[in-house]
Amino acid sequence: MSRFLSARHRDLVPYVPGEQPQDMQYIKLNTNESPFPPAPEAVQAAAADAAKCNLYSDPLCRSVRERLAKRYGVDMENVLLTNGSDEALNFITLAYGDAEHPFAFCDVTYGLYPVLCRLYHVPFIELPLRADFSVDVEACLAADCPLILANPNAPTSLALPRDMLEIIVASRPDRLVVVDEAYVDFGAESCVPLVKKYENLLVVQTFSKSRSLAGARLGYIIGPAALIAELDGIRCSLNPYNVNRMSLAIGSAVLDADEAYMQNCCVIMENRAWTADRLREMGFNVLDSSANFLFAGHPGLTGEAYYKSLKARGILVRYFSAPRTAPYVRITIGTREQMEALIAATGEILKEAQA
Amino acid sequence: MSRFLSARHRDLVPYVPGEQPQDMQYIKLNTNESPFPPAPEAVQAAAADAAKCNLYSDPLCRSVRERLAKRYGVDMENVLLTNGSDEALNFITLAYGDAEHPFAFCDVTYGLYPVLCRLYHVPFIELPLRADFSVDVEACLAADCPLILANPNAPTSLALPRDMLEIIVASRPDRLVVVDEAYVDFGAESCVPLVKKYENLLVVQTFSKSRSLAGARLGYIIGPAALIAELDGIRCSLNPYNVNRMSLAIGSAVLDADEAYMQNCCVIMENRAWTADRLREMGFNVLDSSANFLFAGHPGLTGEAYYKSLKARGILVRYFSAPRTAPYVRITIGTREQMEALIAATGEILKEAQA
Repeated sequence: MSRFLSARHRDLVPYVPGEQPQDMQYIKLNTNESPFPPAPEAVQAAAADAAKCNLYSDPLCRSVRERLAKRYGVDMENVLLTNGSDEALNFITLAYGDAEHPFAFCDVTYGLYPVLCRLYHVPFIELPLRADFSVDVEACLAADCPLILANPNAPTSLALPRDMLEIIVASRPDRLVVVDEAYVDFGAESCVPLVKKYENLLVVQTFSKSRSLAGARLGYIIGPAALIAELDGIRCSLNPYNVNRMSLAIGSAVLDADEAYMQNCCVIMENRAWTADRLREMGFNVLDSSANFLFAGHPGLTGEAYYKSLKARGILVRYFSAPRTAPYVRITIGTREQMEALIAATGEILKEAQA
Repeated sequence: MSRFLSARHRDLVPYVPGEQPQDMQYIKLNTNESPFPPAPEAVQAAAADAAKCNLYSDPLCRSVRERLAKRYGVDMENVLLTNGSDEALNFITLAYGDAEHPFAFCDVTYGLYPVLCRLYHVPFIELPLRADFSVDVEACLAADCPLILANPNAPTSLALPRDMLEIIVASRPDRLVVVDEAYVDFGAESCVPLVKKYENLLVVQTFSKSRSLAGARLGYIIGPAALIAELDGIRCSLNPYNVNRMSLAIGSAVLDADEAYMQNCCVIMENRAWTADRLREMGFNVLDSSANFLFAGHPGLTGEAYYKSLKARGILVRYFSAPRTAPYVRITIGTREQMEALIAATGEILKEAQA
């Protein structure tokens, strides 16, 4: 570290995103992107706005917030827009975490939660998932500090039903609960309908997955107006123009065609069922996914070996080396053709491993 | 504040950006945007990339960093890309400020510096500008803590020569100096050529002003590789995909036509000289601007009265109510037609004020 860096950051360990090869020669099933590009009308909307890029974006992000409010049956004051949902998690950690308010989250979950806590020196408690990778609801009920739950969880792909989450939220009105619903549109139940009922619930969503806009960096928080106003204070203290105008334009246009994007989710879910069946036929343990990815492991193959063998065959998946996740890989669901290529390659890899 | 907000943020006062009316019926001379839209080729590049928005952006932002490195005669490892230069200032404050490292900056300067310091509880020292609004170089030399200097300064429009900044940087090798060059392309001398020579210098620039991309949110830091690597650690701890792919595409294309954008700066400088002459003829005190705006006040008119009278005539400028700036307004330089409208309106306003 340089002699200028604050001693607070001596032990900083940044988040490591999945590989993003720029030459595009891989079948990319490693970062949970949608295989479907945004619709031509949405691309046109972004292009039209690009010509106005000499002017700042709307710092209030009204076009997208209005549409989200209408879509989800809330008011504009319940919606905050962010530069990807990672920024939403940043604002929440900075606003609500401190030495007296440690955060709690599962021991196997999205890797950015502990990274943000370490950055801001917010202590955190990791709640172990049960042996079957399900969330330990008893432990969640017991935790008396702000709780972040990814639902569906990543990389496990498992979801809790909304009823269960409501019990957790209602159990301690003085404890903040953040539900990170990045993958909710692939078959889980959203907690957004609970936002008007509870003062202590924030829901984080993103355009990255179901709405085919990972590259546009567009996330949002839906929550009680009082908390959204506080988070907006954080946003305006950091970067009042946090979302650029092309992303606002493409996000608005995508919401105008929301049914079509939700149809894409159905296709992904069909491809997911097909892929899970094929992997199970080959002896894989595949968790019951409510997300656009599968968490799968084979008794005859470490996660690392499977990942490397797939990469050698031009297919990228994601492998997490921590002890509990090491037997598995996370496989993004793409087009049927991509999944057929994955299954064919997997057949070859198993044949070689058994030879 | 809610019962959940960290007590650290009890006194949070967010930055207030200039008005951004969305109906576009004003002549907008209030947020230092360029009046020239990005070139059609750049718009096309963004549109082509919008169609790929289902895929994440390059987290290393290579296309733009390579071009910036070439343009400024540094290496890629000397360049960090940010979601607007506000995010650059955020990373720097978070990385290098703490209770033991208060920041110093001028008492009249970009309003985000104290906002960021308050957010992170970094104490700060305000160095008073001299009576003529020039930077007090003696005070800068004396300050033995990280120093942020906007050059040209805002809203004063005044610039220090590079030689003077080099003396400040060289005077204390153990003190970090951040030069915020948002407006440097309008006639000031950049400190980028000093970056390879000093370990304690960071230069912040932006595509927002001279390169007509305020709405794309694209800023950057040029500095020693060791500091850039630390700042990249902060970036990857907060939001590894901090810049979206449409902004990367339009930024790359704009850099490929950099001479044309620098030509636009010459037009702005001509319009600035014309406007300053007209205002002085009408009795205004106009500071010698090296930026794309003028800082101007008239003895017969408060800044607030002038701002309001212009707004009533459909022209937006920016007014800052702090005691030292209250007699003045900040006027962005637009097209010749826009400046002619400003001058005509100003003539009317003065006539009314004197009546």
